[in-house]
Amino acid sequence: MFSQSMYQLGAKRSCIRELFEYGLRQAKVVGPENVFDFSIGNPSIPSPPAVGEAFTSLLIQEDPLTLHGYTPASGCEEARQAVAEDLTCRSGMTIRPQNLFFTCGAAPALISVIRALGVEEAEVVAFAPYFPEYRPFVESCGVRFVAVPADRETFLLPIGELEAYLTPHTQALIVNSPNNPSGVIYPRENLQALSELLERKSREYGHPIYIISDEPYRELVYDGAEVPFLPAIYPNTVICYSWSKSLSLPGERIGYVCVPDCAADSEELFSAVAGAARTTGHVCAPSLQQWVVGLCTAQRPDLEAYDRNRKDLYEGLTEMGYRCVRPQGAFYLFVQAPGGSAQAFSDRAKEKNLLVVPGDDFGCPDYFRLSTCVAHETIVGSLPIFRELIAEF
Amino acid sequence: MFSQSMYQLGAKRSCIRELFEYGLRQAKVVGPENVFDFSIGNPSIPSPPAVGEAFTSLLIQEDPLTLHGYTPASGCEEARQAVAEDLTCRSGMTIRPQNLFFTCGAAPALISVIRALGVEEAEVVAFAPYFPEYRPFVESCGVRFVAVPADRETFLLPIGELEAYLTPHTQALIVNSPNNPSGVIYPRENLQALSELLERKSREYGHPIYIISDEPYRELVYDGAEVPFLPAIYPNTVICYSWSKSLSLPGERIGYVCVPDCAADSEELFSAVAGAARTTGHVCAPSLQQWVVGLCTAQRPDLEAYDRNRKDLYEGLTEMGYRCVRPQGAFYLFVQAPGGSAQAFSDRAKEKNLLVVPGDDFGCPDYFRLSTCVAHETIVGSLPIFRELIAEF
Repeated sequence: MFSQSMYQLGAKRSCIRELFEYGLRQAKVVGPENVFDFSIGNPSIPSPPAVGEAFTSLLIQEDPLTLHGYTPASGCEEARQAVAEDLTCRSGMTIRPQNLFFTCGAAPALISVIRALGVEEAEVVAFAPYFPEYRPFVESCGVRFVAVPADRETFLLPIGELEAYLTPHTQALIVNSPNNPSGVIYPRENLQALSELLERKSREYGHPIYIISDEPYRELVYDGAEVPFLPAIYPNTVICYSWSKSLSLPGERIGYVCVPDCAADSEELFSAVAGAARTTGHVCAPSLQQWVVGLCTAQRPDLEAYDRNRKDLYEGLTEMGYRCVRPQGAFYLFVQAPGGSAQAFSDRAKEKNLLVVPGDDFGCPDYFRLSTCVAHETIVGSLPIFRELIAEF
Repeated sequence: MFSQSMYQLGAKRSCIRELFEYGLRQAKVVGPENVFDFSIGNPSIPSPPAVGEAFTSLLIQEDPLTLHGYTPASGCEEARQAVAEDLTCRSGMTIRPQNLFFTCGAAPALISVIRALGVEEAEVVAFAPYFPEYRPFVESCGVRFVAVPADRETFLLPIGELEAYLTPHTQALIVNSPNNPSGVIYPRENLQALSELLERKSREYGHPIYIISDEPYRELVYDGAEVPFLPAIYPNTVICYSWSKSLSLPGERIGYVCVPDCAADSEELFSAVAGAARTTGHVCAPSLQQWVVGLCTAQRPDLEAYDRNRKDLYEGLTEMGYRCVRPQGAFYLFVQAPGGSAQAFSDRAKEKNLLVVPGDDFGCPDYFRLSTCVAHETIVGSLPIFRELIAEF
């Protein structure tokens, strides 16, 4: 006498979480130095010092009734103003506070946008490899989830193949760059080709197709790579952002939806996002966290440790013969499974206390994901085991 | 090309919010001392000092990666343990950490439980006067919202009338005590009568009917009144709680669902709640706030100011001839509108810069709500205007 679909969603453990918790248990048995856990994307560098200072100075200086009080559903004025100015400055496009709706992180931001676009028979497209939660997010809004297979050579957006997956019911595409799990950043030309196709198809179907740009890794970029500002390339873009990764605040649940003025029916869509948020129980994003991010728009993560991990693991693995696109952003490597089955590879690796996530739920069952936000010793210690494994498969 | 129902939910302003924002604008015109705003239920006493101390000591002493990191979806172990112990101690019933699922406040807690129970043709019952958001919460889960008219003499649960509103599709009833907007606390006998009826009807229908006990005002109680622990009276009770009012942290979005062991199919229902939370974009409740409430389970609000406001406003109004049940909890008065139309009364009061919320959305269009979490001068200054109004109507 309760919803079976909700029960299934709650009872089915995420493969990532299961591996992570297995790792914690196993560490107690064999010692943490003998477990090489690449499962979870939990930032391993602390927040910039200014973030901690913002928290404490607000708590000391601000009136607690203001600091902890309800803010408007869309967020407190000061924080929206600060973030709008920062976005305007970085993008060269005018973003107003009224374009921003603060949320409890990127997950409810995505769901609010998808639900806002959830008309009868709606479809939302995602590109493999994709963040596994996209599927339950989309399907729980009563929307059809359409997965476009990956271009395994490059993991770029496969524009040529995409058209076959678009229909008059296509309401939106989710674009996630820098990408989880591949670490790929879609270059400007790739996004321009996407924009041209979507403009043509929007005209053909007689309604806008939106891009939902999921950008939690926007600031986690290496080698000076460019992350193009999508609304400047394709106006019908809605941004979903979170400070989880950029300020190492994943537990604090603070992010936003940005519906820029250039998006079709911008104001109405913003209202629909606000209405959809209300149906998720959104009242406001945590107020203290709103004030903090408003003070910290200039802060950037210290990427040195992630970059070193990325290079050493990428180079170590490719030298052994593993195949993997060199990541330019985020903190993941997506590696082709020797032998073809990531599940089999992951199972065998687990026996050697090496924890890697099979790519099945990412839409690529022949790849596994490595999260590189780990201690550097984990990288060093894991390489001999990777060498044993590639010899076995 | 976006969801009209979401647009309507987002575009239609809450009457409470509109009055509140009107009051802010009007204060700039006529001076804040001349606006008597009883619209919004924003706590007006600051958090107990221990709450601020918990925030700052955690920020200074804890490892930021732990403090700001992802917690399990259900909440961090330490906080669940502390809250479970506190509940056990207060209720005399064993509540285990595994019974608790931390949420971003009471709103997503309620939605997760309703969605978990949202089988085909499901119905959820609420008793007028009810918190207006119950209706969109229930309806957005695809569940039928059934409102039982108020007993206007007492505002207690009208057990005699209730049976006519129960059907084989009734999945749950929302019980909110202390009640927003009436301030009434349902006494033990009233709840026992409810329990007897629901046990009989559950047997008749062959499935459990759950009570969803929405308890954000549990600690806001005057005159030593008792708020009975509902699961001890009716086992199939699920509690939704928030620290918004008790610790004056409404913006911080921290609350929980408690599915006690005594509830039918407790473990499965807990999983369904977790699954439903996932579809709202829940990842975890804000981690810093989890740690804080875990340290503050012994804290209680300083109710003196609320109590004084309650007494002075209640006595002032009833002496003039207004009819109102004496509230024993929360921080509201629900007053019969002289003339019969609360909207007409509210409109006329607004012309005199007195802001009261008509009860239409609470299911009682002939009553208006006064929020008594205001400055005491607001009470004093408002009484002459109330006197003018009752003479007019």
